[in-house]
Amino acid sequence: MRNLKLILEYDGSSFFGFQRQPHHPTVQEELETALSKLLGRRTKIKSASGRTDSGVHAACQVVHFLTPSRMDCARLRQGLNALLPGTVAVRDVCEMPAGFHARYQAKSKVYEYRIWNDPVRSPLRGVRAHHFPERLDLQGMRRAARTLRGRHDFRSFSVSNGKGGVRKNTVRTVKRLEFKKEGSLLRFRIEADGFLHHMVRRIVGTLLEVGRGQRAARDLPRILRAHDPRLAGATAPAVGLTLLDVTYEPFSG
Amino acid sequence: MRNLKLILEYDGSSFFGFQRQPHHPTVQEELETALSKLLGRRTKIKSASGRTDSGVHAACQVVHFLTPSRMDCARLRQGLNALLPGTVAVRDVCEMPAGFHARYQAKSKVYEYRIWNDPVRSPLRGVRAHHFPERLDLQGMRRAARTLRGRHDFRSFSVSNGKGGVRKNTVRTVKRLEFKKEGSLLRFRIEADGFLHHMVRRIVGTLLEVGRGQRAARDLPRILRAHDPRLAGATAPAVGLTLLDVTYEPFSG
Repeated sequence: MRNLKLILEYDGSSFFGFQRQPHHPTVQEELETALSKLLGRRTKIKSASGRTDSGVHAACQVVHFLTPSRMDCARLRQGLNALLPGTVAVRDVCEMPAGFHARYQAKSKVYEYRIWNDPVRSPLRGVRAHHFPERLDLQGMRRAARTLRGRHDFRSFSVSNGKGGVRKNTVRTVKRLEFKKEGSLLRFRIEADGFLHHMVRRIVGTLLEVGRGQRAARDLPRILRAHDPRLAGATAPAVGLTLLDVTYEPFSG
Repeated sequence: MRNLKLILEYDGSSFFGFQRQPHHPTVQEELETALSKLLGRRTKIKSASGRTDSGVHAACQVVHFLTPSRMDCARLRQGLNALLPGTVAVRDVCEMPAGFHARYQAKSKVYEYRIWNDPVRSPLRGVRAHHFPERLDLQGMRRAARTLRGRHDFRSFSVSNGKGGVRKNTVRTVKRLEFKKEGSLLRFRIEADGFLHHMVRRIVGTLLEVGRGQRAARDLPRILRAHDPRLAGATAPAVGLTLLDVTYEPFSG
């Protein structure tokens, strides 16, 4: 069997996330339908670098699958793009060693969260962005964001599940974190070795509360230390979030 | 009666153009519905700077209308944005002298045509762009484009109407014209004192034929001189076209 890696780009607006689920359109379903049709046999994705939630976009989602097909990579890419809807594209296809795994070997991921910070929404420049009309204290947001850098238990910025449940490892290392402002468009980028469910959106929601003066920047370290998901801010809407990049360890076999 | 100017931004993908027409969604219809509801009386647009065709976008469309309402401009903008769909926004409202007319006083307009020139379409970066997968000779396109600069009869780049009909004035002055390349995204900008119907899209269609080697750059002056709409290239798709700006004479009366 060949182990093939695909790099996908998608606009998540019309999907209920990456992962296949019954009765709802998902990226995985579109991809598996196209793959199965192109290869003439039922073909399933083995794994994606991570799931993206409903409405979340990806500029570079990495997935892998196994196939006995001998179709070359360029033809595969072309064939899939001809079958996929306009909201999904296969940017690249390449053959990997048998041991390559899209999720387990991901070393770090970069997410971007876009905020259209203007009193008036922008149908052209504010696409795939959360429209936030109130004035923001960007300096305060930057100060607050900096305190999240490094290795921390991010439990406070995860989803609070009422079930109690098993205590998972919620320690992650945030390697990079920055705000860029281009006119009314604010881009927040964050790179980490992994992300908890809703982690980026809860961080952004909390930073927006700092930005509008509802919280102090110095609250962030306190929230982080509490390990309590009830303390962080609201979950920012999915529309602004894009998985920008996934990096892998140089593959050694 | 007050004479109010609106600056509109819209994504034209879901509209059959700016101008109202029966049985099809148009920007004008959305705007007049919102205006009439907000002002509590049937209110019609007097004029737009120009019509945009089905599927064409606008970052800055200027329209004006008359109203006896005394609602202040900021409230009007806010009220309209609350009523309009997410694909249309009112960027600005301001009060003009009685003689201001959105179409007659427009001095020049700028259009942008976006081409996503990459073998693979891009659901994120290639939005509102014409996907053109073949390699383009940008230098040749620039050379060809330059010959259109200045005052010319652009009849060859208008719509050929089979009706014969009245010979309209088809002389226009192209003031500026440039290609910008950002990775796979090609932006063609053109500024003129006015545009014939389909003129930008026929110019782009012709330049794409030059870019793919189907025509020589030196063909352009010949096409221009022939005053024959059958000689220019195909009409490039509406999806890539955006009305970017409209400028007016400093108002003196």
